[in-house]
Amino acid sequence: MIKVGIVGGTGYTGVELLRLLAQHPDVEIAAITSRGEAGQPVSQMFPNLRGRVDLAFSEPRVDVLSACDVVFYATPNGIAMKQVPELLAAGVRVVDLAADFRLKSTDDWQQWYGMPHACPDLLAEAVYGLPEVNREAIRGARLVANPGCYPTAVQLGFLPLLKAGIVDAGSLIADAKSGVSGAGRKAEVHSLLCEASESFKAYGVAGHRHLPEIRQGLRGMTAAPVGLTFVPHLTPMIRGIHATLYARLTGEVESLQALYEQTYAGEPFVDVMPAGSHPETRSVKGANTCRISVFRPQGADTVVVLSVIDNLVKGAAGQAVQNMNLMFGLDERAGLGQIALLP
Amino acid sequence: MIKVGIVGGTGYTGVELLRLLAQHPDVEIAAITSRGEAGQPVSQMFPNLRGRVDLAFSEPRVDVLSACDVVFYATPNGIAMKQVPELLAAGVRVVDLAADFRLKSTDDWQQWYGMPHACPDLLAEAVYGLPEVNREAIRGARLVANPGCYPTAVQLGFLPLLKAGIVDAGSLIADAKSGVSGAGRKAEVHSLLCEASESFKAYGVAGHRHLPEIRQGLRGMTAAPVGLTFVPHLTPMIRGIHATLYARLTGEVESLQALYEQTYAGEPFVDVMPAGSHPETRSVKGANTCRISVFRPQGADTVVVLSVIDNLVKGAAGQAVQNMNLMFGLDERAGLGQIALLP
Amino acid sequence: MIKVGIVGGTGYTGVELLRLLAQHPDVEIAAITSRGEAGQPVSQMFPNLRGRVDLAFSEPRVDVLSACDVVFYATPNGIAMKQVPELLAAGVRVVDLAADFRLKSTDDWQQWYGMPHACPDLLAEAVYGLPEVNREAIRGARLVANPGCYPTAVQLGFLPLLKAGIVDAGSLIADAKSGVSGAGRKAEVHSLLCEASESFKAYGVAGHRHLPEIRQGLRGMTAAPVGLTFVPHLTPMIRGIHATLYARLTGEVESLQALYEQTYAGEPFVDVMPAGSHPETRSVKGANTCRISVFRPQGADTVVVLSVIDNLVKGAAGQAVQNMNLMFGLDERAGLGQIALLP
Amino acid sequence: MIKVGIVGGTGYTGVELLRLLAQHPDVEIAAITSRGEAGQPVSQMFPNLRGRVDLAFSEPRVDVLSACDVVFYATPNGIAMKQVPELLAAGVRVVDLAADFRLKSTDDWQQWYGMPHACPDLLAEAVYGLPEVNREAIRGARLVANPGCYPTAVQLGFLPLLKAGIVDAGSLIADAKSGVSGAGRKAEVHSLLCEASESFKAYGVAGHRHLPEIRQGLRGMTAAPVGLTFVPHLTPMIRGIHATLYARLTGEVESLQALYEQTYAGEPFVDVMPAGSHPETRSVKGANTCRISVFRPQGADTVVVLSVIDNLVKGAAGQAVQNMNLMFGLDERAGLGQIALLP
Repeated sequence: MIKVGIVGGTGYTGVELLRLLAQHPDVEIAAITSRGEAGQPVSQMFPNLRGRVDLAFSEPRVDVLSACDVVFYATPNGIAMKQVPELLAAGVRVVDLAADFRLKSTDDWQQWYGMPHACPDLLAEAVYGLPEVNREAIRGARLVANPGCYPTAVQLGFLPLLKAGIVDAGSLIADAKSGVSGAGRKAEVHSLLCEASESFKAYGVAGHRHLPEIRQGLRGMTAAPVGLTFVPHLTPMIRGIHATLYARLTGEVESLQALYEQTYAGEPFVDVMPAGSHPETRSVKGANTCRISVFRPQGADTVVVLSVIDNLVKGAAGQAVQNMNLMFGLDERAGLGQIALLP
Repeated sequence: MIKVGIVGGTGYTGVELLRLLAQHPDVEIAAITSRGEAGQPVSQMFPNLRGRVDLAFSEPRVDVLSACDVVFYATPNGIAMKQVPELLAAGVRVVDLAADFRLKSTDDWQQWYGMPHACPDLLAEAVYGLPEVNREAIRGARLVANPGCYPTAVQLGFLPLLKAGIVDAGSLIADAKSGVSGAGRKAEVHSLLCEASESFKAYGVAGHRHLPEIRQGLRGMTAAPVGLTFVPHLTPMIRGIHATLYARLTGEVESLQALYEQTYAGEPFVDVMPAGSHPETRSVKGANTCRISVFRPQGADTVVVLSVIDNLVKGAAGQAVQNMNLMFGLDERAGLGQIALLP
Repeated sequence: MIKVGIVGGTGYTGVELLRLLAQHPDVEIAAITSRGEAGQPVSQMFPNLRGRVDLAFSEPRVDVLSACDVVFYATPNGIAMKQVPELLAAGVRVVDLAADFRLKSTDDWQQWYGMPHACPDLLAEAVYGLPEVNREAIRGARLVANPGCYPTAVQLGFLPLLKAGIVDAGSLIADAKSGVSGAGRKAEVHSLLCEASESFKAYGVAGHRHLPEIRQGLRGMTAAPVGLTFVPHLTPMIRGIHATLYARLTGEVESLQALYEQTYAGEPFVDVMPAGSHPETRSVKGANTCRISVFRPQGADTVVVLSVIDNLVKGAAGQAVQNMNLMFGLDERAGLGQIALLP
Repeated sequence: MIKVGIVGGTGYTGVELLRLLAQHPDVEIAAITSRGEAGQPVSQMFPNLRGRVDLAFSEPRVDVLSACDVVFYATPNGIAMKQVPELLAAGVRVVDLAADFRLKSTDDWQQWYGMPHACPDLLAEAVYGLPEVNREAIRGARLVANPGCYPTAVQLGFLPLLKAGIVDAGSLIADAKSGVSGAGRKAEVHSLLCEASESFKAYGVAGHRHLPEIRQGLRGMTAAPVGLTFVPHLTPMIRGIHATLYARLTGEVESLQALYEQTYAGEPFVDVMPAGSHPETRSVKGANTCRISVFRPQGADTVVVLSVIDNLVKGAAGQAVQNMNLMFGLDERAGLGQIALLP
């Protein structure tokens, strides 16, 4: 059994990690920490875990975490980078669900997250945990930077087009829509039911932190210069991301459908939908799946890609477990067999 | 492996049965029938099942169903009663998720469902599938009448009070609230998002089909005459039932909390909440759990019980699987380990 | 034109007051105050008011408020009682939408609101602003205590039964369901969309602040001793209260329907629905209307009353404007002609 | 008073027309027809109209409609074109809220609506009722084709860019999101709350009927060839459209913000938001307003426009009333003073 620690378990990625890990056949949850809630039984805050997770939140202690095989950070940005070096030194592997190790450039980090990086020397070693791109590197990694939710949906959607080199990489558009859980379990007015339900809005149009992360990932897929317009929107639902992607065709392709199917053949968690179908976010609710469709409307030169995930699963906790499975040589699908809850 | 057939799989209880059975370790789904959709792959209608259920809907055929060990009916009321005798004769066991075998009185059936009963002689044999009440009878049953959703939540809530004989059974009140999935996957105006969201209403106050079913169940728990006022309400959400129950204390009880905890000690799917807590329906979303709290506000003589279930799981498909497990001597919890999806 | 001031305008009752008053033919909004937001244009916080309300929030200043004809308090509990005496002394009339002047008993106030009352001598003078009960007193009032949302729906529902003296006033039950806006525009975890949508729960079963207010109101309707069990629930929607009321018939009544119709004949804002119909909260969304139905299920001795309001309108801001209209001798319906938004 | 008839009043545009017209100072509703519901009081189907609209649905009769000053068609596509010639001949003016008279090309009509046009000779005369584009023509019109919901939001968003000639008209992208009421009040599975809530999806990516309508409108704004990719999405809410528009800058512009503000200066129902703000659909819920923001993210050459309307008001019934006001020489804003309901 793999001994697992979770740092910062009071948010939605924390409870989702617990839901998945409590059902994982090869895992023992050793500790879940929260400074603010130390002593409180986890199942008191998250009653869905009653009878399934008997732990209480504990103060984060290095000795306890150091005795784990792997530690997940489900903390706000900027926490993990201060603690991870010590854990790595103790031989613990780390999956960071925050942004601390996602950007390779410390300048980008400083610009978008507004603080200097605490351990820039680890950035080169950290593996960006998108298995469909970096599977082999993840297997050997000590430190995995779990991708953001938008970046997962957007990169998986663009990947086949960019690798095939058939679109203008300089004029990509990602119009992305997220459920409110993407904002986390923070007491903020704009996430209240009365503010966010029965309404729809864009936000961060001038610039969103996931933009440099996506751009960095797309650059890894093509030698051409990448230009991306990224517009996130808030959708009145709890879970789900729907990315609608636009790219201008510049090269020849016999069948976009075949390109997508071939690219993702054998991928356990990417499902290319039949031609002409529109994936719904609810078809992946609670599941570690990305479903993708590709269109070329009216035969014109704009390709439209639809890519959906559950932001808390394939966009966070599920992908983190998938990465852990790879890091420990388990079946990549272990503990990730949940079927989406529909309706 | 138990060979399972599902008759009428295009509704919400059908897809929920498939979600649970596809993950059940001891089950092989042999057939899922639908006259209207015969030939269509199940995963085309329910894309959450893509890659997990490879069957197509088929015409209902007696030979195919007769080769099953157990057949679930997820059909409209009045279908199962016409087909079940033949299946039983062929040695197939049956769990009916419709109402056909719930009421012991054919008069009640005729009055509330508006048609004569097709096989009244089976009503005595049919076992009402509420395991917390009828576990032993279910183990030996050929034919199980799976309880309605409201009846499950209401009966489990009242059970400790009635068995203890400490309330006036003649003036019980059940104020019950259901998500819209209780209305099924039928194209009806009143279930449209634009009709049912951002609104709340009672319905069927003058009389609802679950009233005689609940009354019959409560009568089995007490020798006193039972009087019940049952008011169902439609709640703007997909899943969940919340029953708020009121009863007048007439007898002595040292601790209502202890009474409830003792009654349900050892029950795998009934969770008595800590004193003073309020169960949320989301704490059981997707799980086969009933969570219950009991209050005596201001020390007055009215007991208030809060009982929540997922209407599609403990209120339908999950309880059906629980019954199947009992009928076939499996661990009662087999295939029912899902943790509720929260948020 | 009546010069109006609003103290504490950043909550949902504040913006709703602005919506109604901005369209009121006899009103000029002179000031809207907020310590925290002073200087910010109102329409920046509430963009629905762009082009319709040109004011900015201002610091609360006695000289400005004293120049108003009437001041509405849309503040947290405990604020108005400290400021109202000074305004009254300056000849300003006051409608308090908080609870400060609702309870006649200072002991009740102290017990349920946890602070001593700042001006107990005004409690006798303050008129409880439920026009259907206190219309004449409101007309002459200097100080009106605007009723709570639950109390409005519950009292209007029970009123005909208690005045007719045909039910057991000692065993009343009010099972009430509210939209989330009843919790206000406060940044609290339990009001987040991800916590409150797709779920249903009771809260405050052991005791809710509206209990003493309702009980006091009901006592004014009958000479018999009043016993009330009040259970509030949180419903996954923004606006609306649905009260389901239960009472035991003890006296004779020819027609409950006629009793309700006669009681509310001529009332501009109470609508008794046709026999057998179930009012939906959406039928009053945005309107100052209470719709009521009455049932006697199965002819038994339990009466069931369904009473719906928009908690922000007839349950708060609309009723406040109705009270203002009465206080200033205007048509009671002035500025309250909005038709509910459906769907 | 203008005598108004409504044909086909049982849908959401019908009830919304009634809500607006019942509060319009210059209108008398003479008849509202529905073959299916003839004889039923309107307020029975739409209880929000109780006490405000006393009509019953009636059979559509030419003599009754011919006695009206104006008739609104809120019928399915293909009905109005069969009846309008007779009404026009009788001197009645017509506003058609369906698509019958929107497309100037009968070939387009035939292709997208799948039926031959019944009165192609009227297509030239029919005025496309987008007041911000065609105000003068509407004033003199006998027959107004009320725009579709998506086309209203998209055209108002692109208009300033195209008129200024500063973007590549050949590569426009409109990513549009609609509430479910856009699908109408039809009993269809995909519009059920359990299908459409807690989910998000695109639809009609291969081709949507509003595409030729938008394209035709955009062509009227520029001499350059127009190329448009239009992707509609279904959003889990009742009302609201949010169009996110993308265009490639080709020309010089000092300030996009100033361009938008100047274009819409004086427009009563288009509100250009302050620079940097993101309009929410709820800010126009129930109001006849289009709110627009314009961005140039990272100073790159992609312009992003955000345009929101209430699909039932500015996208249907409200715009129809605005057109009626123009046709009859009334204040364009008459009866359209509703402030959006927020929250």
